[in-house]
Amino acid sequence: MNKKLKKQELPKVIFTDFDGCLTDDRVWLNQDGEEFIAANRKDGLAISRLKNFGIKVVITSTETNKVVSARAHKLGIEALQGLSDKVVAIQEYLEKNNLNWNDCWYIGNDLNDLGAIRKVQFSMCPKDAVKTVKNEVDLILKTNGGYGILSEIATSLEAL
Amino acid sequence: MNKKLKKQELPKVIFTDFDGCLTDDRVWLNQDGEEFIAANRKDGLAISRLKNFGIKVVITSTETNKVVSARAHKLGIEALQGLSDKVVAIQEYLEKNNLNWNDCWYIGNDLNDLGAIRKVQFSMCPKDAVKTVKNEVDLILKTNGGYGILSEIATSLEAL
Amino acid sequence: MNKKLKKQELPKVIFTDFDGCLTDDRVWLNQDGEEFIAANRKDGLAISRLKNFGIKVVITSTETNKVVSARAHKLGIEALQGLSDKVVAIQEYLEKNNLNWNDCWYIGNDLNDLGAIRKVQFSMCPKDAVKTVKNEVDLILKTNGGYGILSEIATSLEAL
Amino acid sequence: MNKKLKKQELPKVIFTDFDGCLTDDRVWLNQDGEEFIAANRKDGLAISRLKNFGIKVVITSTETNKVVSARAHKLGIEALQGLSDKVVAIQEYLEKNNLNWNDCWYIGNDLNDLGAIRKVQFSMCPKDAVKTVKNEVDLILKTNGGYGILSEIATSLEAL
Repeated sequence: MNKKLKKQELPKVIFTDFDGCLTDDRVWLNQDGEEFIAANRKDGLAISRLKNFGIKVVITSTETNKVVSARAHKLGIEALQGLSDKVVAIQEYLEKNNLNWNDCWYIGNDLNDLGAIRKVQFSMCPKDAVKTVKNEVDLILKTNGGYGILSEIATSLEAL
Repeated sequence: MNKKLKKQELPKVIFTDFDGCLTDDRVWLNQDGEEFIAANRKDGLAISRLKNFGIKVVITSTETNKVVSARAHKLGIEALQGLSDKVVAIQEYLEKNNLNWNDCWYIGNDLNDLGAIRKVQFSMCPKDAVKTVKNEVDLILKTNGGYGILSEIATSLEAL
Repeated sequence: MNKKLKKQELPKVIFTDFDGCLTDDRVWLNQDGEEFIAANRKDGLAISRLKNFGIKVVITSTETNKVVSARAHKLGIEALQGLSDKVVAIQEYLEKNNLNWNDCWYIGNDLNDLGAIRKVQFSMCPKDAVKTVKNEVDLILKTNGGYGILSEIATSLEAL
Repeated sequence: MNKKLKKQELPKVIFTDFDGCLTDDRVWLNQDGEEFIAANRKDGLAISRLKNFGIKVVITSTETNKVVSARAHKLGIEALQGLSDKVVAIQEYLEKNNLNWNDCWYIGNDLNDLGAIRKVQFSMCPKDAVKTVKNEVDLILKTNGGYGILSEIATSLEAL
């Protein structure tokens, strides 16, 4: 059900999965198990463009990984990590911030994102998300994970 | 001969080649010869989805490489490495575990996988495997190596 | 407005954005926040081919990043970094070098390049630039950022 | 002029450029200028397949770079590096090994390969070589640089 973004429905927060959304879901590994991921500068610039609409971006990640903290730090945004259940974690965040699910958009690409996808006002996934997720979201973006999904969203909002 | 996956034929073990299956067959190298490979988070999640079907995943790799051990450790699966002959190595594994070839699926992408491909109950390769391998397997997956082949298999099984 | 390159309009300087032009706009990150970018050898060779036309290449980057300095050093070119406003920075460069905007071409891929794009004699963007930029430049290159845009330009000039 | 490979014309040596042939022409760089390149396991396996035809592979690289030495060492092949003129360097190699140009094939992707391309018995380039090179070689391979060009050649020879 590819609904369109409409201005009157602008969220206060966009929650986004990290791996597969802000990255291409790949992880570079060396023999010591040291990990690299590949983020995109376009998403960095898009975060300040979204701020112009009063929208905050918050990362939600199942794993706890220092590489997520490093990226969140550089982007100047919050990251909720080590979430066995993303719905519970977002619920807590909303209560603490006096928000509700209708104030939120969500971006996810894999099965552990389905719970949150079903709760938010508007849900999206990258073009290369897994099939089950593509079947459930409100909007399938035209951009692959890690190639600037936040930039695509900012551009859509700026064109409204 | 693109056979379909059928539920009654579910294996006990899926053996998979590492390079070119759980990676895109590329290796990043610096001037000291230090190696990085690129794995995919989707395959990490898929391993627990396959466990729901009672299926174990085991890596079989010709080379002995610490990067394979590092990835197997993170995924919580076994890796058989340094295999001059993959058929012999799998045979030993099967005997030790009271299994036989009919309990196994195999995923490979290059010529050193042909022996095992010919022995198992059901064989697969990534979309970008070498031509000779594509001509021999039961199923050519729709996913390139390193982009979530185990996730594709889990999704197929969940849809049966 | 896809204008063609014409020999009589050859510039003295091509200013190019770094991320997304000389790279694919991605940044590889580890848990310590250490960054890698991916440049292209083709652009290295193209810089000396452009020199044959009396054209210098100068990098303009919003961020100050040692990885830009490292690449500029290897390429033997100048990099203007930490530019809150690229138009102002280029203006200063031009005055110092007795040049004017009509002596310049500019290559950019994202919104912070629009100011300079509107000032130069001739502007270009990589094939995968953001939509707003593609709508404004004189020429959309056939090459994606990080895959040899300077090489494409050199080849076009050599064919004139 | 897309000539076909013919068995009677098998070479004694295939000279191949490194960057853009055994890699995708990209270089990963960090802030200290440390370089990574991305090679392909398929080419590693292909070198032993080519040996079955009595064919040696030798790398020719304009730059002197430890990363080339590291890769050549792992592949167990020779690398001629720091070549201001590849034709001169190959000529010396041929004299020292009692070979002549008619015993050689050459693979290159950029302008500094044109000299050697014009001298050998049979020349090839990756699918993503620069245009000028594609116009001059005997055969444009179906594989991009860094994705297994030697594997494609071995497969073609095995099918003769």
